[in-house]
Amino acid sequence: MRTLYHFPLHPASRQARIALAEKKLKIKEEIIDPWQPSEAFTELTAESVPPVLIDIIPGGTVTISGVRAITEYANDGSTRHPLLAEDVFERAEARRIAAWFDTRFTDEVDAYILSEKVEKTIMGGASADPAVLREGREHLQFHLGYLSWLLEQRDWLAGRKYSLGDVAAAAHISVLDFLGEVKWRDWPDLKEWYQKIKSRPAMRGVINDRVAGFRAPRHYTDLDF
Amino acid sequence: MRTLYHFPLHPASRQARIALAEKKLKIKEEIIDPWQPSEAFTELTAESVPPVLIDIIPGGTVTISGVRAITEYANDGSTRHPLLAEDVFERAEARRIAAWFDTRFTDEVDAYILSEKVEKTIMGGASADPAVLREGREHLQFHLGYLSWLLEQRDWLAGRKYSLGDVAAAAHISVLDFLGEVKWRDWPDLKEWYQKIKSRPAMRGVINDRVAGFRAPRHYTDLDF
Repeated sequence: MRTLYHFPLHPASRQARIALAEKKLKIKEEIIDPWQPSEAFTELTAESVPPVLIDIIPGGTVTISGVRAITEYANDGSTRHPLLAEDVFERAEARRIAAWFDTRFTDEVDAYILSEKVEKTIMGGASADPAVLREGREHLQFHLGYLSWLLEQRDWLAGRKYSLGDVAAAAHISVLDFLGEVKWRDWPDLKEWYQKIKSRPAMRGVINDRVAGFRAPRHYTDLDF
Repeated sequence: MRTLYHFPLHPASRQARIALAEKKLKIKEEIIDPWQPSEAFTELTAESVPPVLIDIIPGGTVTISGVRAITEYANDGSTRHPLLAEDVFERAEARRIAAWFDTRFTDEVDAYILSEKVEKTIMGGASADPAVLREGREHLQFHLGYLSWLLEQRDWLAGRKYSLGDVAAAAHISVLDFLGEVKWRDWPDLKEWYQKIKSRPAMRGVINDRVAGFRAPRHYTDLDF
């Protein structure tokens, strides 16, 4: 039995959950607060941050740490329900987009909006700084425009097949949607993509997330928003 | 013919060069200054930073952007000279270590030492700040200790096989060695690993790098340092 240590409003953790669910891998979920992880958790890995997957195999346990290792591991296990296309260039594009979210989107959007709206709420400290939120929202407009431009030309973000690029985008966008940060009427191509994403069974877990201190907008769980 | 846009003292660019060389893929190299990229280069990709690989295929050109996409693409092309083990857990460990370098080592070491010693020299601005360098060197000690601990137990960083984890480490460590930042006598396990790394033909390119404004220590090019 595999155990995934994750935090519901953490995009990297969500990527791990979505990828494992797409591959129909059964896991037990354990929630970890990334800002105040328990000592028992930090001793599991050098990284000390979720997501971390513990797998029990003949002879012992294996620890797989981090979004990149876990999502590729999920895909490596079998050829069923692939998360990367067979075409090497489309595979490369999927990994480029996943890296775009793991670095650039994280630095330019999450570091502003999630740090203000999630971290401050969880830590019980100061209220969100409107100037920081405004800057994060400006960056978010740029990113949603870029994703929309890609989706004007493609079925899925990396090309013709659903991929780890879509997993990464679904994870980040769904957290922002939970926080009411996406004005869907401004982004019809992206909305169409997100409707397809939300209807995938692998999204059920994150769509049903409830987090103390937060109330998602009503459309968050609505597949036909 | 493939063209790789890179910068010699940029660890992500070096990873791309090493991975492509390990797979015996012939490329033409074009040097890009990551801090002052040309407009012609920034128009190639949304990322606007090296490494970027342009591949000419029947019907057009393909752009592969970023260290993660390029290194996995290099490995995906053939099963010869593999950069990931067959074992799924060792593959996961290789990707964990590559991510460790791409995020944590970059943030905790490169952001201090390379920003002070490389970026400031290239940009022709202020001289290096000793306090920032000191902090980066303290972080580097922690990281070299962690890598040494892994290598006490393993042949290569991710386990029994040379992998993308070693490629990532070789790229970052070789840039720091070029700058004279690694005190090899303090790290015998790591030194033994780096001697094996340096003797690989795929390292010849980065070992022969010459960069205007910099003089590498004499041992940098010495395989038996």
